[in-house]
Amino acid sequence: MKIISSRQNAWVKRLREAIREHNDEIVIEGPKPVADAVAGGWKPIAIIIPTGQSLLSIPRPEAVPGAMFLQFYPEVYDAVAETRSPQGVIGLFERPRSTMEDVLARRDSIAVALDGVQDPGNVGTIVRLAAAFDASGVLLLPGCADPFAPKAIRASAGAILAVRVAEVTAEELIGAGWPLYAADAGGAPADPPSGDAVLVFGNEGNGVSAEIAAHAQPLAIGMSGRVESLNVASSAAILLARSFALRGF
Amino acid sequence: MKIISSRQNAWVKRLREAIREHNDEIVIEGPKPVADAVAGGWKPIAIIIPTGQSLLSIPRPEAVPGAMFLQFYPEVYDAVAETRSPQGVIGLFERPRSTMEDVLARRDSIAVALDGVQDPGNVGTIVRLAAAFDASGVLLLPGCADPFAPKAIRASAGAILAVRVAEVTAEELIGAGWPLYAADAGGAPADPPSGDAVLVFGNEGNGVSAEIAAHAQPLAIGMSGRVESLNVASSAAILLARSFALRGF
Repeated sequence: MKIISSRQNAWVKRLREAIREHNDEIVIEGPKPVADAVAGGWKPIAIIIPTGQSLLSIPRPEAVPGAMFLQFYPEVYDAVAETRSPQGVIGLFERPRSTMEDVLARRDSIAVALDGVQDPGNVGTIVRLAAAFDASGVLLLPGCADPFAPKAIRASAGAILAVRVAEVTAEELIGAGWPLYAADAGGAPADPPSGDAVLVFGNEGNGVSAEIAAHAQPLAIGMSGRVESLNVASSAAILLARSFALRGF
Repeated sequence: MKIISSRQNAWVKRLREAIREHNDEIVIEGPKPVADAVAGGWKPIAIIIPTGQSLLSIPRPEAVPGAMFLQFYPEVYDAVAETRSPQGVIGLFERPRSTMEDVLARRDSIAVALDGVQDPGNVGTIVRLAAAFDASGVLLLPGCADPFAPKAIRASAGAILAVRVAEVTAEELIGAGWPLYAADAGGAPADPPSGDAVLVFGNEGNGVSAEIAAHAQPLAIGMSGRVESLNVASSAAILLARSFALRGF
């Protein structure tokens, strides 16, 4: 168990870069989220606790082969941690990468695709909804916020640890040949598909791209005339919950 | 048309206080929101545009009797306005106040009650959903964010201009004698009522208060076991949309 006493240490810099950039390495904080990430198959690079804290709060080393175990002096730990808690644990993980094929492996549910959804809170909320209503995963078309950004991870309330996420181009998604449905307030209100389809949610202001719209069936939510549209996360909540109910749950 | 050239002017201070405090006076920005507020019966105190801008962007004075019309020097206007646009208009309005009786005047729809919903983005999103699914209004139990806070107004996407909002105590709401339903992940999944009921959504972490819970029927949303709960705005989206659909829309 290596002890780190300086904020200038390379591990501290690496953690801060992972929090800021979330490209190849992702920081997860808290005993339950770190344990869930390990259980979910995420590859741990390092597990960090403050010096003086019980080792019982961290996964057993044999459960996370290959991970470094580090103890940070409290002031160093606090310089990295987002929250102060009596049981602080930080995990540095390799960013999980799924492919479109991973997400589209199940035909008994629907997949979610996001097209230019720019707000990380909306992206994280939709990841949480995908888990809640057992979607097969989330496909990210260009222009979306990163679901591994800290704000999106928080909005997902831990669901990012259990949902497959893959980046795709519009060409790849169209080429996969799955029935596409696009949430679109201009379409006719109808129930969403219960399975074997991809449900696409577009940009907060502009909806889905022209390329996707040309290949997707528009799907509206029945509403009063008192508003023009819904927040994209509200639309996703309604359609994913309804699809789940139509699968017989 | 009075011209204001200094940021020290009392009108500037009054607008800033209204933005910060949103107690008795509310600031609304933009030609369409200001026109919608006037059309929705809000009482205007002052209508403000930058000097040099066409008067066509503002309501005609005879349409807003009692309101002051002011022109601010551009640098004074920018010190108050949140967004810079070619058609800037700011309206200062009396805060609209509805009563519980106003909200509960209709029995053909449901009313929404919020209990300790602290995030202004969630409160504003739920106001938007109340309009989208034609709820009769929103009742605010103690501990809620103010729906007239700027962040909540933005999240409502203008719906705050058309939704009745009233503050109530738990005693008043229970005393009104309406059937109460509380969104509660611990209850049995069931369809929400289609009308003649109040649907209560609780605090993001703790749900509804014990007092409300003792008088309300719990109502869960059918979900997979992959998450423990939903964001309160997601729960509201699903239950309000379903209630609207059950009313035959």
